[in-house]
Amino acid sequence: MDISNELAVGIDIGGTNTKYGVVNHRGDILVKGDLRTDAYTEVEDFIDALYDKLHPVMLEQHEHGTIKGIGIGAPNGNYYKGTIEHAPNLHWKGVIPFADMVSDKFEQPCSLTNDANAAAVGEMTYGAARGMKNFIMITLGTGVGSGIVANGQLIYGEDGFAGELGHTIIRPGGRLHKSTRLRGSLESYASATGIVSTAIEMLENSNEKSLLSNYKKSELNSKIIYESASKGDKIAKEVFRFTGQILGEALANFVMFSSPEAIILFGGVIKAGDLLMKPTRLHMEKNLLPIFKNKVKLIFSELEEADAAILGASALVWEMKLSDTWVKPEKIPVI
Amino acid sequence: MDISNELAVGIDIGGTNTKYGVVNHRGDILVKGDLRTDAYTEVEDFIDALYDKLHPVMLEQHEHGTIKGIGIGAPNGNYYKGTIEHAPNLHWKGVIPFADMVSDKFEQPCSLTNDANAAAVGEMTYGAARGMKNFIMITLGTGVGSGIVANGQLIYGEDGFAGELGHTIIRPGGRLHKSTRLRGSLESYASATGIVSTAIEMLENSNEKSLLSNYKKSELNSKIIYESASKGDKIAKEVFRFTGQILGEALANFVMFSSPEAIILFGGVIKAGDLLMKPTRLHMEKNLLPIFKNKVKLIFSELEEADAAILGASALVWEMKLSDTWVKPEKIPVI
Repeated sequence: MDISNELAVGIDIGGTNTKYGVVNHRGDILVKGDLRTDAYTEVEDFIDALYDKLHPVMLEQHEHGTIKGIGIGAPNGNYYKGTIEHAPNLHWKGVIPFADMVSDKFEQPCSLTNDANAAAVGEMTYGAARGMKNFIMITLGTGVGSGIVANGQLIYGEDGFAGELGHTIIRPGGRLHKSTRLRGSLESYASATGIVSTAIEMLENSNEKSLLSNYKKSELNSKIIYESASKGDKIAKEVFRFTGQILGEALANFVMFSSPEAIILFGGVIKAGDLLMKPTRLHMEKNLLPIFKNKVKLIFSELEEADAAILGASALVWEMKLSDTWVKPEKIPVI
Repeated sequence: MDISNELAVGIDIGGTNTKYGVVNHRGDILVKGDLRTDAYTEVEDFIDALYDKLHPVMLEQHEHGTIKGIGIGAPNGNYYKGTIEHAPNLHWKGVIPFADMVSDKFEQPCSLTNDANAAAVGEMTYGAARGMKNFIMITLGTGVGSGIVANGQLIYGEDGFAGELGHTIIRPGGRLHKSTRLRGSLESYASATGIVSTAIEMLENSNEKSLLSNYKKSELNSKIIYESASKGDKIAKEVFRFTGQILGEALANFVMFSSPEAIILFGGVIKAGDLLMKPTRLHMEKNLLPIFKNKVKLIFSELEEADAAILGASALVWEMKLSDTWVKPEKIPVI
């Protein structure tokens, strides 16, 4: 079978926006679009609206190739069941059989996982992890997500929820995470939100003059802190040094778990570049056993941030096995 | 092919003693024996001595079945290369091509991994993890070892050294580990050695009367502490409560990594039973995200401690794929 003209649909469900695109095997996004997620209080209405926008696009793309299926990245996405379960940032509560619903509506096989796992599959298919069998993807954005690949396979665990490294405890008894109520988790320090908290704490506990004092607490964000650090601001630089230390210690633990070839970092926070990476690498190496030292590559994602979520979701389609490509027997795909 | 009368040889290399046995598919050890590891400063001499004891036994067992191969569990064992690398507790320094040497001498295919990984394979083959696709094995003895199974496969990582969970940092800046020089690792608290250190620290920082004060520091061991706790000794009980807290916090992190069906505990330390398990379970659950709570079984190994290492090593043989069963082409197995 000639697979070269197969196409995959990638859908990334975010708390505010949903992005979608049609992607070929090379990772070119042939067409893309978006709609508001938060405008629909009922999941059925959302899927109807998605269908109205996306289905005509899929029909148009038919001239370029055959659509093989739909991949979806979603918060609290369960790969095994195709469900979105108790996602805190979505209107739709409880356990939503999202993949089945999309599959029914679009009459296409459908695969779903959480957004960080989708990012890992995307990186393995089109990005920095091509050819790698063992790597860890860490997404550093509003939250901290992760996807773990070992023996060439994503680790989903017994229930489909494996790889929640952002919620591992790095500082027992440390900073309270507002939504999980856990203390000292990686996410409470290394997310964009965590970085702002660190800056506020440091400003409160220091007499040092800082550019950051020109902003209200509510105005501070990781971009402002990065720009201040770039101008040489001592406190802003210390914020990234401290964040890198915590992240590096966490990465050392992850390395001793699955001994990856590389750790791939992705997300808004990595724009800080060496300000963050130097302390991260230093503290990762410092906390590794000798057998792991100076082996693990610490690299940035090669995917455009704007496209990565669509690409990651679409890559799930190439991973589909025959047993996954469930299509209701009485229905024949229209595309 | 009838595999029911196949036999596997299991060899467990310890710092002091080496144990070996011939095992059938049901996990019965048909015959076993041992020799001193530390009596041989040269690895060649050790392998000669092992051959002189084990080879006649293998010939005798020929009447019960066909020996399929030899599995070896060894400290710092590298599954991919069959090497023992820089094992701190062995006389043989550097990188030893141990599996190749044994394979040459015995003219048998040979597979090697570290002792905790072998324990995990043993548990999956003969013990509490039969039928499980996702579990974590934690060995709590002089040290803390681990073997991680995900998607039905042991995670070896890029270099064959994955699964060093005993060396993950649970208390940053905490207790110094004498041999790794890392601070606050799980092993420095939850190993038998760590438990003794905790008892000594608690005795020094308390005015409480304790049965433990009847012993010299150098006499204290985890058995004495357990017996004192069983008699109601407050400090001894607190030692296990604290150890369980640290262990539970560590296990929560491991669950968020690979979301296993079960965590299986093995080794001398688990004799403390509920004294250790209750706080361990409590603090594990306390540190888990809601999606993981009350899901993960925390269970004890079902293998006899005396036999587990041999069984685990032997189980590697059943896992051998054709590509693993390397036999030098010019040699024909004598058995």
